[in-house]
Amino acid sequence: MLGGWKFANAKDGSMAEYFHVSDAIANLAPIPDGLSDEQAAYCCDMLSTGFVSAEFGNIPIGGSVAVFGVGPIGMMAVVGARLCGAGLVIGVESKPDRASMARKFGADLVVDFTKEDPVEAIRKATGGAGVDTAIEALGSPTTFSACVSATRPGGTISNIGYHGDGDTVPIPRLDWGVGMSDKTIRTALCPGGSERMGRLMRLIQTGRVDPLAMTTHRFKFADIKRAFTMMQTKEDGMIKPLVTFG
Amino acid sequence: MLGGWKFANAKDGSMAEYFHVSDAIANLAPIPDGLSDEQAAYCCDMLSTGFVSAEFGNIPIGGSVAVFGVGPIGMMAVVGARLCGAGLVIGVESKPDRASMARKFGADLVVDFTKEDPVEAIRKATGGAGVDTAIEALGSPTTFSACVSATRPGGTISNIGYHGDGDTVPIPRLDWGVGMSDKTIRTALCPGGSERMGRLMRLIQTGRVDPLAMTTHRFKFADIKRAFTMMQTKEDGMIKPLVTFG
Amino acid sequence: MLGGWKFANAKDGSMAEYFHVSDAIANLAPIPDGLSDEQAAYCCDMLSTGFVSAEFGNIPIGGSVAVFGVGPIGMMAVVGARLCGAGLVIGVESKPDRASMARKFGADLVVDFTKEDPVEAIRKATGGAGVDTAIEALGSPTTFSACVSATRPGGTISNIGYHGDGDTVPIPRLDWGVGMSDKTIRTALCPGGSERMGRLMRLIQTGRVDPLAMTTHRFKFADIKRAFTMMQTKEDGMIKPLVTFG
Amino acid sequence: MLGGWKFANAKDGSMAEYFHVSDAIANLAPIPDGLSDEQAAYCCDMLSTGFVSAEFGNIPIGGSVAVFGVGPIGMMAVVGARLCGAGLVIGVESKPDRASMARKFGADLVVDFTKEDPVEAIRKATGGAGVDTAIEALGSPTTFSACVSATRPGGTISNIGYHGDGDTVPIPRLDWGVGMSDKTIRTALCPGGSERMGRLMRLIQTGRVDPLAMTTHRFKFADIKRAFTMMQTKEDGMIKPLVTFG
Repeated sequence: MLGGWKFANAKDGSMAEYFHVSDAIANLAPIPDGLSDEQAAYCCDMLSTGFVSAEFGNIPIGGSVAVFGVGPIGMMAVVGARLCGAGLVIGVESKPDRASMARKFGADLVVDFTKEDPVEAIRKATGGAGVDTAIEALGSPTTFSACVSATRPGGTISNIGYHGDGDTVPIPRLDWGVGMSDKTIRTALCPGGSERMGRLMRLIQTGRVDPLAMTTHRFKFADIKRAFTMMQTKEDGMIKPLVTFG
Repeated sequence: MLGGWKFANAKDGSMAEYFHVSDAIANLAPIPDGLSDEQAAYCCDMLSTGFVSAEFGNIPIGGSVAVFGVGPIGMMAVVGARLCGAGLVIGVESKPDRASMARKFGADLVVDFTKEDPVEAIRKATGGAGVDTAIEALGSPTTFSACVSATRPGGTISNIGYHGDGDTVPIPRLDWGVGMSDKTIRTALCPGGSERMGRLMRLIQTGRVDPLAMTTHRFKFADIKRAFTMMQTKEDGMIKPLVTFG
Repeated sequence: MLGGWKFANAKDGSMAEYFHVSDAIANLAPIPDGLSDEQAAYCCDMLSTGFVSAEFGNIPIGGSVAVFGVGPIGMMAVVGARLCGAGLVIGVESKPDRASMARKFGADLVVDFTKEDPVEAIRKATGGAGVDTAIEALGSPTTFSACVSATRPGGTISNIGYHGDGDTVPIPRLDWGVGMSDKTIRTALCPGGSERMGRLMRLIQTGRVDPLAMTTHRFKFADIKRAFTMMQTKEDGMIKPLVTFG
Repeated sequence: MLGGWKFANAKDGSMAEYFHVSDAIANLAPIPDGLSDEQAAYCCDMLSTGFVSAEFGNIPIGGSVAVFGVGPIGMMAVVGARLCGAGLVIGVESKPDRASMARKFGADLVVDFTKEDPVEAIRKATGGAGVDTAIEALGSPTTFSACVSATRPGGTISNIGYHGDGDTVPIPRLDWGVGMSDKTIRTALCPGGSERMGRLMRLIQTGRVDPLAMTTHRFKFADIKRAFTMMQTKEDGMIKPLVTFG
């Protein structure tokens, strides 16, 4: 059910010099001229996962999208929403540096959920209707539930957040229209494939997005543990670290 | 959000001799020759609601479908699943007369959830994988949750059940793949429209389905209260009553 | 562009005892109990190609479908249309034995194009509108053009016919609404895949279709040349031959 | 089949002070603050028609798109392709001023078909494969045919050109893969609807597109005949005229 996760969890050695990958050909793609290795590295997960949330979001052209949680994946969900035709992209985020970067990546508006109720703010920004698409990029019951509430009847909730706790994830019954409001809930795990990788790299090549702008910190490989730790603590305003060899 | 419901709930008089309907032209359709009024009456809700659960179910041709709850709507979900290409239709139902009728309407198998765990039975019947599509035609947290669990990764849960109780409807976190198993949850309320009504009547006309086979009881209009009461108590094995005038 | 064709055309030896197939695992599927090898053999091409024409046809539930040419592939297109929810299936065919078999496989009506104009007959059978979906299962400019004309605005022309002659295939300009009638033209070549093969076999297993009913002639392997010749001449009312070993 | 055209063709008076429109409510939408009437006027046809060609184009994120003919509708097709996620947009156009404006609206490359074969140029720009989506925004047999040839197997040809001449529009048989290359041909006529109009205006409001940049000439209402004439002759580099009252 979660095949892609085996490298980070069940199969050891993915940081070694040589590593075994079954059917690797399915995902290999040549890096085109004009693209740095550093840029290309972002395609594998950040771009692919962030964008798929928008691709699965049934965004009508000119539609409205809310992205709950603009960490690095949510940041690429903002870019993905723009690439999928959104006419209004609303980020939901409390950290000022992330909010600021989300605006640079294309968010029209960022709601600070510590200062106002995000569902109310989203409804207000959409004339009372709610958004066409809400993207859950965090992975919490509260956020998921707010996504359902912030979506208009007929709209889509697109989940890319990893839900790590609890027995159940709650759908708010009334805001779900007691099961009859034609709201669709989709989920995705980072899709791969050579063709897709080629197309994602093309988007960097033709200037649609520069993922390097997410890089707040750089490390040598010897310091990779520090990079991992900071990804968890998110200290010093870390959004995305880049680890280089040699 | 639930426009169609106003007639039964917010707008009085729908049983009177004359009744006001806004924009009625949008749903009017001539009853073709060879179709009785009684047959046509079933199109408005039973067929339209039951079928849409299959239409929204992304059923691959030859795919497997489980229908949780085969009351009259679920019965038409069984027919809808067959019409949408299902190669295996599993009903989940404990009442023997309903199970029997579901088989007549095309269920390949009916699981009695009082005798075995339906999720286990469904997995067993699908080689361990789970169904491509689970249809929730009852409207309970337990059933909804079982639908998510009984669906294979990449499959669809199609809800037409009315969820009347509780603050939330629970998604089982692990069987939902912690939000990453690409399971889609859709909902629908009975769709209308003249064109659709014409197509539903055609299905009766060309012998694809005879909804009259669901009629277990008949009433004169004077006894309509008794019909309504029995629909709630479901006594005497009632599946669907038919009320006639004059 | 036409990968699947290499076995019959560019790569020799497909009738030998042992034959090399690259990435064969992608298409292998176990034949379930209760299915004969003879039935299973029909899944590879007849069922998969015939059905995909309906799957690509955007058939609304209860919609109308015309199948132009009911040879063995067209026969399975008729079954596919029924499996995809068609409320009315019209075959277009002049050979009486094929027309008769098409009716057994589910066609509601068969139009003999040597006795009446098929486009007119189809419009008449659909109240003047034309069908929701026209399937081209022959591969001729005349038939293709008639498919476009017989389809209602907003409908779909689904081509599975092999077009072997001429520089161009003609779209009738006016019946195509001068390029503005929202008619979609799709094409398909027999899709494969283990999962699909499993689902197609399930449809035989659960009694949705019995392809053996198409078998008009049987041959021993030693007489295979005669079988091939008769498939071209279609003499003696041949629809589909079955060749057995040993 | 071509309902929207009645105002310009079959129903007189659309330039009068008062004009009758049936069911006008279906298309009415309030112009939001910050949008000029002049900008809003472009939504009714230019944006809606241009964009729908991209919406119907099945453009994968980061995919490649060719737009044949970048007049005002094609210009908006370029913008639409960008809004629908294209990673590479190729215009086909010989007029230098139009080519230049297409680049400003987002074309990555413009091919001059008088100087090189556009199909060859498109294949070269896509590594030999052809584009995922070709948009026909001119309405000629030659262009339509080139669109089919320039599209990769599995891709989509999206037609918005009005085809005014000839009995048939030709599909090039071999480049169509003899009817088996899974190339889809779609067509569209300018879609309307209040919701759509609102979303199109939002795209202007949030700075995704400024259609006024297409305005090369301005006229008073008294000179409207001159504007119509120049739209046909396209003299003086006219792309789009704007006519004002009072």
